[in-house]
Amino acid sequence: MHEKILLRPQLKVRRINLDTGRENVVVISSRSKALRAEVFRGFSRVELRCGSKELLATLLLTDDGLVGADEIGLAEPAFRRFGEPAGTPVTVTPAARPASLDAVLAKIQGRTFSAADITAIIDDITHYRYSDMEIAAFLVGSASFMSSDELLALARAMAEAGTQLTWDRPIVVDKHCIGGIPGNRTSMIVVPIVAAHGLTIPKTSSRAITSPAGTADTMEVLARVDLSVDEMKQVVATCHGCLIWGGHVNLSPADDILISVERPLSLDTREQMVASIMSKKLAAGSTHLLIDLPVGPSAKLTTALEAMRLRKLFEFVGDHFGIAVEVITTDGRQPIGNGIGPVLEAQDVMAVLGNEPDAPRDLREKSLRLAAHLLEYDPELRGGKGYARARELLDSGAALKQMQKIIDAQGPSGCRTDLGRFTADIVAPRDGVVEAIDCLCLNRMARSAGAPLDKGAGIKLFKKIGDRVAKGEPLYRIYAFDEPEYDLAVAAATDNNGYVVGLRSGGEAGA
Amino acid sequence: MHEKILLRPQLKVRRINLDTGRENVVVISSRSKALRAEVFRGFSRVELRCGSKELLATLLLTDDGLVGADEIGLAEPAFRRFGEPAGTPVTVTPAARPASLDAVLAKIQGRTFSAADITAIIDDITHYRYSDMEIAAFLVGSASFMSSDELLALARAMAEAGTQLTWDRPIVVDKHCIGGIPGNRTSMIVVPIVAAHGLTIPKTSSRAITSPAGTADTMEVLARVDLSVDEMKQVVATCHGCLIWGGHVNLSPADDILISVERPLSLDTREQMVASIMSKKLAAGSTHLLIDLPVGPSAKLTTALEAMRLRKLFEFVGDHFGIAVEVITTDGRQPIGNGIGPVLEAQDVMAVLGNEPDAPRDLREKSLRLAAHLLEYDPELRGGKGYARARELLDSGAALKQMQKIIDAQGPSGCRTDLGRFTADIVAPRDGVVEAIDCLCLNRMARSAGAPLDKGAGIKLFKKIGDRVAKGEPLYRIYAFDEPEYDLAVAAATDNNGYVVGLRSGGEAGA
Repeated sequence: MHEKILLRPQLKVRRINLDTGRENVVVISSRSKALRAEVFRGFSRVELRCGSKELLATLLLTDDGLVGADEIGLAEPAFRRFGEPAGTPVTVTPAARPASLDAVLAKIQGRTFSAADITAIIDDITHYRYSDMEIAAFLVGSASFMSSDELLALARAMAEAGTQLTWDRPIVVDKHCIGGIPGNRTSMIVVPIVAAHGLTIPKTSSRAITSPAGTADTMEVLARVDLSVDEMKQVVATCHGCLIWGGHVNLSPADDILISVERPLSLDTREQMVASIMSKKLAAGSTHLLIDLPVGPSAKLTTALEAMRLRKLFEFVGDHFGIAVEVITTDGRQPIGNGIGPVLEAQDVMAVLGNEPDAPRDLREKSLRLAAHLLEYDPELRGGKGYARARELLDSGAALKQMQKIIDAQGPSGCRTDLGRFTADIVAPRDGVVEAIDCLCLNRMARSAGAPLDKGAGIKLFKKIGDRVAKGEPLYRIYAFDEPEYDLAVAAATDNNGYVVGLRSGGEAGA
Repeated sequence: MHEKILLRPQLKVRRINLDTGRENVVVISSRSKALRAEVFRGFSRVELRCGSKELLATLLLTDDGLVGADEIGLAEPAFRRFGEPAGTPVTVTPAARPASLDAVLAKIQGRTFSAADITAIIDDITHYRYSDMEIAAFLVGSASFMSSDELLALARAMAEAGTQLTWDRPIVVDKHCIGGIPGNRTSMIVVPIVAAHGLTIPKTSSRAITSPAGTADTMEVLARVDLSVDEMKQVVATCHGCLIWGGHVNLSPADDILISVERPLSLDTREQMVASIMSKKLAAGSTHLLIDLPVGPSAKLTTALEAMRLRKLFEFVGDHFGIAVEVITTDGRQPIGNGIGPVLEAQDVMAVLGNEPDAPRDLREKSLRLAAHLLEYDPELRGGKGYARARELLDSGAALKQMQKIIDAQGPSGCRTDLGRFTADIVAPRDGVVEAIDCLCLNRMARSAGAPLDKGAGIKLFKKIGDRVAKGEPLYRIYAFDEPEYDLAVAAATDNNGYVVGLRSGGEAGA
């Protein structure tokens, strides 16, 4: 609004050691001489300027020494993003709303977004110009209805807002699971199998946001995952594949920001999920993509119908952007493998790759099935031979060798790999058969135990669905590094252990 | 989730001098020994407990001395609401979402709210259990469609969440304007006229949220407005009327909270506006209500059709709750009166009440018209005589006398009543006729000048629509108390002075 007028710099930047997460937050003194703080209360958002640099931020007030009267405090994320040293003089004005918010308001009133609207919105979000409330308005306003054109425009705008990788190969395969199933670390088995075969599979993964482990967190137990684009390309050149953290190479950066608002609100919109995933695959340069949709009572998808509707959306977007998309539904009734938490999951993965006798069979079988689908993308492979080829590469140790090559190429992470020393065994309350396991409950419990920040915290399962248990026999073990996390996780397990143990004679159920 | 388990108190309360507005915010050290802060990052909302007291809050992290490792910092609003002294030991756990949020998610997916859903949501919002994002989700999710039953349930739940006044009289009249028009302080003239006649008019008003003055801010120039319920009842007993701040007597407390999210988002939903206003009138015990809907190009309503649709909603809700509602549309093309800002507006009001020769005629005429409608509610008054009676009470000085009685009864506020000493005259850029005045632009400019915090800051208009002006002749004067506010307001006026001065010959326009 005041662009044409050059105001005097009024306040000096001060760094405030406060992690406000995604949102830019600044603090000024209510006794500020240069700028009467109270005047701004009605505006709530302010704009900082220094030369051509600008930053939109939410304004908080303080009465005491947190900032001086001639200072403006920038909380950590705002300080980092503004990128000017402490003491830099800045002008501060009431912030006009980002112009793209007009389209959000129109959408709330029932209109549809143009592609240009969506590009502007994603650009503003990517550059931290939206407050959390504004992001919530965009997401909720789009949640009840999103047209096909809007969905395509959103996927494209998100992909184009960050790094876009290109590969000098006709076939670049990828796989993706929509998540929600603890222990489901198939990528770390599928990538070495497919790479051992010689197909290109430059896998980028997420860190956990609200779950106890993402593939990036688990891979980090074994190797560095915060590679640059150049380093990633080098690993792929020598190993055909990699397993790195997508956040570090800035693939679809708006996605993490949108998720940081979707998750606390438990917003779960099909179109937004598809746009988010496909934007990452577009940006990653994938040509062939396998999507894993687990279905189960505590999975993200609870019915085959939901899975089918989601599959159609993935196929539609894939066709539009020229990505060959195959979508399969898998068993999402319980965790995959035995471990929940980075170290425990990495142990499962290495046991499968090492063909160890006690390696979890469900993780092995699911990984082979996924790898089989991907291998069939190789025009050289005879149709229907994917599964046999995958098993051959796993059983022969070729996949393990390839994984070691990838680990060496990515380099050591220096992470601690020991398990938490505070442990508790949660036992069966009666003789019976395990009838159900609640994925959400175990995810939350493992998170309370300290995962993924404590790599060695989490849960090791001893029993899965169909297993017989005796009263007092351990169902699983909780691992934590400190007493408070231990207390929280045990309290959660005592409240609801996540298992349904049914009587063999049928009838009564419930643990 | 962990209600059944009593955890040890882990952290000690520390007060953090940071005004985070509506939202509860707490800060813990990333080096905290009792509670590993990072574990909580995925949860983002935490629950504090001390005995039976609990508080939901958003969690921020710090690395340095803002809080110690064994402390939890409560920002001002959270500290005040928790109500425990510094040093109190508390337990902190990840917060479960408020249960009522499930209904919000269902609404976003297209279902409607039950009355019980709405009661639970308003209860959670009133008790600060919703984050800003969650409030935004509720508002946006309700914005595209709200059924009649939802609207009624919302108005009732909001009214019942706070103080509910009762009056021992058959007729309790009230008036309300939906706002947006600078200087529109008719209540301060209507109340003394109607009270002088002997009708009961216990007027509660808002303070400005994003505008340069609310009626409560303007009345505060003349008298105290933060009366208790008992004090208010006493004033009404002796004067038939009062002019106080509704926030202090806790009428419909959820309303201010909802508005604090609606305003920054520029959300403007008819149903929410009607529920908000009618909840306050229900809680205030009004039996007869006059609603003023200004219509104009920069008013909240820009067409007669919009005004009619809004009128129908007010009538529907009024009929349901047994409040006799009359809705009139008024001229909202430009500010009413000459002053914008509390002191300047109070001067206009007193000039009209004092029948001073230079009192603004538009403010006088509009107030008489509104008072006439209200007086007609008196069964003793002959139909059609309302206007004559209103003018009689004003012209005779009875209204002024009644206002002085109300001012004396409410007591002195001790506010400064001088005007800002930094002034700037904004002049006409050419000879011509004033064709339009932008209410939004002048509101924002007066706010930048320091109103309503600086009572004597604001804008005094010298020209209104239809007035002839010569090039260089002042259109209005800006008043501010300090240079930064002066600079901001003048910068805003230089960018857009808010006036359209047309050439008399027609054709070219624009200032």
